[in-house]
Amino acid sequence: MNTELMILLDLAIVIVLAKSLEELIVRLGQPPILGDLLAGIIIGPTVLGLIKATHNVEVIGWLGIVVLIFLAGLETDIEAAKKYGLKAVLVALGGVLVTFFLAYIIALLFNYSYITALFIATILSPTSVSVTSMTLLELGVIRTRIGEIILGAAFADDVMAMALFAITSSIAYYGEVKHESIIQISLALIIIFSIFYLLYKFSNKLFNGVIMSSRLIDTPMIQLLIIGMLMAVLSSYLGLSPLIGAYLAGLALSKVVKERTYRFLEIFAQIISPFFFVYAGILLNPWIVVGRINMYNAIGIVVAIVLAGIVGKILGCGGVAKAMDLDTRSSITIGVGMMPRAGVDLVIAVVGLTLGVLTMELYLSALILIYVTSLTTPILLKKLLTR
Amino acid sequence: MNTELMILLDLAIVIVLAKSLEELIVRLGQPPILGDLLAGIIIGPTVLGLIKATHNVEVIGWLGIVVLIFLAGLETDIEAAKKYGLKAVLVALGGVLVTFFLAYIIALLFNYSYITALFIATILSPTSVSVTSMTLLELGVIRTRIGEIILGAAFADDVMAMALFAITSSIAYYGEVKHESIIQISLALIIIFSIFYLLYKFSNKLFNGVIMSSRLIDTPMIQLLIIGMLMAVLSSYLGLSPLIGAYLAGLALSKVVKERTYRFLEIFAQIISPFFFVYAGILLNPWIVVGRINMYNAIGIVVAIVLAGIVGKILGCGGVAKAMDLDTRSSITIGVGMMPRAGVDLVIAVVGLTLGVLTMELYLSALILIYVTSLTTPILLKKLLTR
Repeated sequence: MNTELMILLDLAIVIVLAKSLEELIVRLGQPPILGDLLAGIIIGPTVLGLIKATHNVEVIGWLGIVVLIFLAGLETDIEAAKKYGLKAVLVALGGVLVTFFLAYIIALLFNYSYITALFIATILSPTSVSVTSMTLLELGVIRTRIGEIILGAAFADDVMAMALFAITSSIAYYGEVKHESIIQISLALIIIFSIFYLLYKFSNKLFNGVIMSSRLIDTPMIQLLIIGMLMAVLSSYLGLSPLIGAYLAGLALSKVVKERTYRFLEIFAQIISPFFFVYAGILLNPWIVVGRINMYNAIGIVVAIVLAGIVGKILGCGGVAKAMDLDTRSSITIGVGMMPRAGVDLVIAVVGLTLGVLTMELYLSALILIYVTSLTTPILLKKLLTR
Repeated sequence: MNTELMILLDLAIVIVLAKSLEELIVRLGQPPILGDLLAGIIIGPTVLGLIKATHNVEVIGWLGIVVLIFLAGLETDIEAAKKYGLKAVLVALGGVLVTFFLAYIIALLFNYSYITALFIATILSPTSVSVTSMTLLELGVIRTRIGEIILGAAFADDVMAMALFAITSSIAYYGEVKHESIIQISLALIIIFSIFYLLYKFSNKLFNGVIMSSRLIDTPMIQLLIIGMLMAVLSSYLGLSPLIGAYLAGLALSKVVKERTYRFLEIFAQIISPFFFVYAGILLNPWIVVGRINMYNAIGIVVAIVLAGIVGKILGCGGVAKAMDLDTRSSITIGVGMMPRAGVDLVIAVVGLTLGVLTMELYLSALILIYVTSLTTPILLKKLLTR
């Protein structure tokens, strides 16, 4: 079999299965990303072991996720965030902190190293509200106070998760927290944030002066892509994840780049980002857990981590909401609405696995948490919001 | 260096250099593809040898070219072709036949095997009129009789080139023309054309019945992409190039899929297809020619092939035009207008090189022909059309 057939066959298998399962999953009222992930689990060693060279999927996947995270930065609407206000930020902070510490302590209790514990805690911290917002939209309550707090909190949550990720991924990269590694990490963060600041400061000049003067027909889409990729490469080179750079590049430009401008980049990301989530599914290999650790122990870990992810959000977000002036039912609703994952968390999990700081049973826990929360949240929300 | 950094670094190098050179080349009035190709020549072993794993570029490149060729099929407007009429078809046929036989005979005279000779002859056959149409547009003569004949001929030319390519690539795949290989090739062609016919016959039902009933937000772009990829994989599996399948898939659907429908796929192709042309440039390695064959001999081959590519079109297209009722100056103008390459020819050349039937000095000749014709055509056309 020649190279181009192997490449195209792998890519065709991925895209056909991913889109078929997306179609199915969407009709079940779930976010399409769960279909991509499931496709990867089926294609990968967990079930069929169909893909010959994971590398072909990985190449497109990494490009896809860099573009997607860059767009997440670009789409950050700081004005809208201000509107939701301090309340939403506090709700998000409550959820992130409680979940983080709960997961960190549980991981330490199961005898994981503190770096692994930091990583799984970071994975569990973010929220991805797409299934929540679909449900709120369906029930017609997305414009209510609860809806606005959840949407605002989800935004603040993303920024906090990326900040946490920047720190834990660089600690994992250097392997331990020592005098020198702290200096290296600090230096890396100073460099990347200085460039972010310069990019932000001169974003108007860069965009309207340089980018828009290009004669290429794909202006400004391609130039935006280049900036995102260069920042990704730089931050990866500095020992931070490439995704930190991509996110900061998007954030720096979010003020000047209007929505219709990056619409084309969204289409591009829509086609190639599924490759990343399929790749995330392919990376799962539960069979290597069998025999390596005691089965009861493995089940215990998975259950504990999944519970930490659920309880952390309900207690953290719901608790803060309750501590403000909301009633118990509304507070629980907010906590449940903040439960779902399947966004940044999955990206961090993939990075952790490829860095070698995340074990397979913890990766499995992160994936199970995604499916459990995505399936239960709509049901619970409907119960809580109707009567 | 970890995997994702290596992948993103390679892709970033490619995209930054390709788009910078495109910017330069476009300002010089040349088609952007020459910038991509030049970027590959500079990055590759010819000059710098910068890319660590060509494979990363190759993966995106193959996906890109499949999408681009699929779109070429999809954009085929059979009604418009009818308008230009028989005259344009005959001009195209003249150019293809004369160039093909000239190149075939020259290659045999230089002691190449008949399979290699067939391949270089196929590479030299197609025309890519983007630089011609830019010049005609600039001179305001694109709506004249000469302009219409050239545009119509370029369309007919593409179809003929793909048909030739289907046959020569399958001969090259099986290595020789023997009894069994003829049966295998015929069988492959029968299968792929039967599926093409079914796809064409049921294109309306498929598109409006199946594809448009999808609930995915990227409908119908992603479903079109899937059809193109599946046909590409099938034809590659049958020993034809994947590009034959992609082209036929597009052609079969061209009747039902309207332009605004595949607009998004064009954007996608615009971002990723440069990777293929950069890859084509990386594949060039003139240093391996040195020492393997006599230098004077190599120069002789390159000059002869480049001349065959130029003379074949001027004699073939110009001759047919003259044999109809056009004056000598107009006939020469049409011949010159049909000279430029840098489209399907480059794709066929890459396939030939990776199949191992094309030698490096012949690949070099094909690339030189691209630059020579692209640089001289606008100058010659301006001289011929103004006085």
